[in-house]
Amino acid sequence: MIAADPLKNIRVVLCGTAHPGNIGAAARALKTMGLGQLLLVAPQHFPDPQAEWLAVGAIDVLARARVCANLDEALAGSAFAVACTTRRREVAVPMVAAREAAARMVEVARTQPVALVFGNETSGLTTAEVKLCQLLATIPADPEFSSLNVAAAVQVMAYELRIAALGETMPDGKPREHATHEEVERFYEHLERSMLESGFLNPGHPTKLMPRLRRLFNRAQLEKEEVSILRGVIKALGHPKRR
Amino acid sequence: MIAADPLKNIRVVLCGTAHPGNIGAAARALKTMGLGQLLLVAPQHFPDPQAEWLAVGAIDVLARARVCANLDEALAGSAFAVACTTRRREVAVPMVAAREAAARMVEVARTQPVALVFGNETSGLTTAEVKLCQLLATIPADPEFSSLNVAAAVQVMAYELRIAALGETMPDGKPREHATHEEVERFYEHLERSMLESGFLNPGHPTKLMPRLRRLFNRAQLEKEEVSILRGVIKALGHPKRR
Repeated sequence: MIAADPLKNIRVVLCGTAHPGNIGAAARALKTMGLGQLLLVAPQHFPDPQAEWLAVGAIDVLARARVCANLDEALAGSAFAVACTTRRREVAVPMVAAREAAARMVEVARTQPVALVFGNETSGLTTAEVKLCQLLATIPADPEFSSLNVAAAVQVMAYELRIAALGETMPDGKPREHATHEEVERFYEHLERSMLESGFLNPGHPTKLMPRLRRLFNRAQLEKEEVSILRGVIKALGHPKRR
Repeated sequence: MIAADPLKNIRVVLCGTAHPGNIGAAARALKTMGLGQLLLVAPQHFPDPQAEWLAVGAIDVLARARVCANLDEALAGSAFAVACTTRRREVAVPMVAAREAAARMVEVARTQPVALVFGNETSGLTTAEVKLCQLLATIPADPEFSSLNVAAAVQVMAYELRIAALGETMPDGKPREHATHEEVERFYEHLERSMLESGFLNPGHPTKLMPRLRRLFNRAQLEKEEVSILRGVIKALGHPKRR
């Protein structure tokens, strides 16, 4: 099923939250960014008036929040689970920065349910919980003081998800029209072919150039029109008009 | 004076904060992102044990926080002041999204002091306060529920400032080395010259192509090595090696 809004396909899971105020603040953070599915794994106090007080206008998100006995139950039905963590783990799960994690989550969430998982305030996620996830997302904090409040981490991740889903608003207020996966891939093929034809890439000596260029353009999240312009530039440079 | 770390040249100003807990949470948010200058314009309760409780390990930021009588006093010595706001204002101050505002602030903060200003929890900033700023920054929230908690807004902006200042960490954990302003400008000149030479751009008919391409590459925040690769690609496509 294609989600009209990928944010509606993203559930946020808080594991073992100690302070109910953090649950309320997380609900508010989610709602400000257009997210609304909150799951609570074994919260220490819930429901709680402190949670309601800090949710302010997001009482509806709290009211719909589902309490689960364990993370396994909270992840049921999700196609992609991402764990938010501040430190590297001794587990074979790849780690990326928050922005990249958000882009990948939104891509999957356009067609399938996705989960973003946060740990307890003091102990974080257990190794067993992390192993249930396919990706680690880290918010690049100051290594000298990396202890984000859990609701603040939810706010940052929810913000990145919203930006990734809706695209940044253009200066004229119009939403950006992102290029599709296929359009971007055809652009990369065009670029690589032209680089091979010009002799810049040597088919006998593969280099890291294409991965570097992909990383650059992926970071920019290309718009449809930009892909057309770039392909026009590649074509023109390779086949100059004789004037 | 060139700041070794532009984040040390950025002060965050909270105006008329009602809840001391928000001051404490803002101090923690700043410290997690490597910022540390907090100024408080006419806070309703400060110092306050609630602020200290929520600052957790950022007590030092609170202890150094300076209380000012008005925004004018808090902005003394700053070269660029940005107001964080959720709504358009009837003032002639341009508004950009959080990400772009952070990039502009960091650029200025490399050489001069910069200020980021937040309003009161319920009434925001006054028109008089906004008029003291040169730019409005808005966090693209859900229009249906755009009320971010002030400490959550501080967290998001501080996060964007950190990303803009230090660059995203590469997958291998190494920091990104951003291209300088001059390197990026020389790349744009090279690109434009090649587009003119190939006939893709017609000097008699200026188009929006170069501004569009600039916007794309500015969004990606080019690294030094990427600028070299891109210039290599432009050169090779225009002058294919005969094999």
